[in-house]
Amino acid sequence: MHIRKTRLLTPGPTPLYPPALHAMMAADIHHRTQDFVAVYKAVVADLKEVMGTSWDVVPLACSGTGAMEASVSNFFRKGDRVVVLSAGKFGERWVQITQAYGLEPVVLSAEYGQAVPADRVVEELTKPGVRGVFLQASETSTGVMHDVEAIGRAAADTEAIVVVDAITGLGTMPLEIEGWGLDIVIGGSQKAFMIPPGLAFMSISPKAWKHEETSDLPHYYFSIRKEAANAAKGQSNYTPSTALLLSLAEALRYMKSLGMDKFIENAQLLAKATRAAVSELGLKLFAPDNPGAAVTAVRAPEGMDSGVIVKGFRDRFGAIIANGQGSMKGKIFRIAHLGYFDFPDLFAVIAELELILASQGVPVEYGKGVAAVQRVYAEAAG
Amino acid sequence: MHIRKTRLLTPGPTPLYPPALHAMMAADIHHRTQDFVAVYKAVVADLKEVMGTSWDVVPLACSGTGAMEASVSNFFRKGDRVVVLSAGKFGERWVQITQAYGLEPVVLSAEYGQAVPADRVVEELTKPGVRGVFLQASETSTGVMHDVEAIGRAAADTEAIVVVDAITGLGTMPLEIEGWGLDIVIGGSQKAFMIPPGLAFMSISPKAWKHEETSDLPHYYFSIRKEAANAAKGQSNYTPSTALLLSLAEALRYMKSLGMDKFIENAQLLAKATRAAVSELGLKLFAPDNPGAAVTAVRAPEGMDSGVIVKGFRDRFGAIIANGQGSMKGKIFRIAHLGYFDFPDLFAVIAELELILASQGVPVEYGKGVAAVQRVYAEAAG
Repeated sequence: MHIRKTRLLTPGPTPLYPPALHAMMAADIHHRTQDFVAVYKAVVADLKEVMGTSWDVVPLACSGTGAMEASVSNFFRKGDRVVVLSAGKFGERWVQITQAYGLEPVVLSAEYGQAVPADRVVEELTKPGVRGVFLQASETSTGVMHDVEAIGRAAADTEAIVVVDAITGLGTMPLEIEGWGLDIVIGGSQKAFMIPPGLAFMSISPKAWKHEETSDLPHYYFSIRKEAANAAKGQSNYTPSTALLLSLAEALRYMKSLGMDKFIENAQLLAKATRAAVSELGLKLFAPDNPGAAVTAVRAPEGMDSGVIVKGFRDRFGAIIANGQGSMKGKIFRIAHLGYFDFPDLFAVIAELELILASQGVPVEYGKGVAAVQRVYAEAAG
Repeated sequence: MHIRKTRLLTPGPTPLYPPALHAMMAADIHHRTQDFVAVYKAVVADLKEVMGTSWDVVPLACSGTGAMEASVSNFFRKGDRVVVLSAGKFGERWVQITQAYGLEPVVLSAEYGQAVPADRVVEELTKPGVRGVFLQASETSTGVMHDVEAIGRAAADTEAIVVVDAITGLGTMPLEIEGWGLDIVIGGSQKAFMIPPGLAFMSISPKAWKHEETSDLPHYYFSIRKEAANAAKGQSNYTPSTALLLSLAEALRYMKSLGMDKFIENAQLLAKATRAAVSELGLKLFAPDNPGAAVTAVRAPEGMDSGVIVKGFRDRFGAIIANGQGSMKGKIFRIAHLGYFDFPDLFAVIAELELILASQGVPVEYGKGVAAVQRVYAEAAG
């Protein structure tokens, strides 16, 4: 075996931004000191800046799913009627969480690879008594994107608060939290934020705080009102994840230095180039209609298990790419763009894909997919 | 500006092997403890194993040039007649060091891009009173390789010891230290060993130790006999570079796990693929006759300063590649293969090169050079 570097090409965890990785080395700090209070305050301020909101933002020591649960347990009441968009594995998770807490979800499903049309949501919102809308900005399992703006604006005049799982949406698509009325927006550390898993965060609108006042669902670790009050003082309810917060502080500085518009455009360009490359290679997109920029899901060639491609990346090149989840497993593979990816990463990924396909007897002209990526680069770079 | 990862593509420093980088974090260790003695002994034993010799090997806290100086100041006498092969900037350094210590070098020069033919050295060795031969296994400034075996074998029956600057030769070409009679072989940490600069090492033959006994040149920090005696006890003469030795220990474990034959073949395959790619793009090699596998020097297209290409790599892609040195500056650029490089690195580098050339108006078919790399990969991987 020759040298084979491990490369993470999955839609979370994503490749680590090296200065953020190294920042974890400074984690011999006590969390109830003024030094750490300064770190915590900076993280909260910078999260607000990159998320583009003046509303409350709280970090949480948990994975994204913990924050999803907190958005239910802190802001709703038992028996609340809510609309849930389900277009993949993460939409199904909203259904499970809302049901676990005794809410009454009206599930609007889309086939895997499709988005739930916004007008179906708008129609549902005209019915009385809907107290919330749950959706994924970007459904990581299929790569599809929802029309967050239309749904946010439609809910603004209703009693419903809009709860957006933007775990892979933040940093890959514009999300105007205040302008579009996105009451709760959830992110996760191991996505566009370029640090390891273990941290989530959530923004909360004034309208959501109103909901919170009447919430009757049990919660303890995830007490968002208390968390927001503490965050204002540079503190967390319980022991914070110091290493990850130090890391996030560094990553946020980098995101600010690039600017969120450029950061998002980076993912969008890589997604566009990936779509161009796989089309050039004769492969089909799984979500051709509303493709997001977090991840591109690609169908394996007819008659080939996508696991063969995933295994080829790993065994031949040390590259970790994602298979499909659930019933999509074996049918699709997913190439990530969110966070710390650049064009040279993609030149290599597509060259690898060409070699893997060729090794399986698929007719491939070497360099043809790479050339498609190069054209997108050249057009963007001028 | 979008995300642009910094990538080191120079023939030293080379990209760091991550576990070796992380091993430096354990450097809060005292160097005169049994814990560190164990590290030092392991490093010396593993260096011998990867260099393929049972002769003495000593690590030195200096750059490669320090070890080059030590090979002069410890093993020769004032006025010694020595043969120096000079085929580039590092050959010139041998001339300077031997002169600085009052040796009398007979300089056998080759034009930049050419090797010094072994038969010229052999002929010189037939003359009486030659006490040493100094050469580069691989001349990093031009990418050319010398016929180390022929020179080593020719000197075996003479009074001359063979001193090989293998700083970029180790890990990129076979070097049979004992079989070919390579009396002193010098390596450096920031080359194929995949760790930062700051450490050099040297193997010493019994014949070289005989020379050492009669050496009359001044030295203090570089006292190789004392260093070898201490190394046998897991100690260094003066304070060792603990962080780098911990790092080297980790890198050596990795090199052993791959096997030196595979490790060398890795660089050779990347060099072969690079030559194929640049030829495909219509560029000319600077050392077409005896190309080494440490680095490939490529001529800029007619009428273009190679600095434009170096700058293109840096500004467009954050990639650091080497310009020519001295009078070669502006004429060539150099792509490194030694150490922690793999094929995905090269897929990206060649795609970048194509885009840089195209941006300068050079007619380039995107993906054509990459395809040449892919063909070399596919042939090797089967």
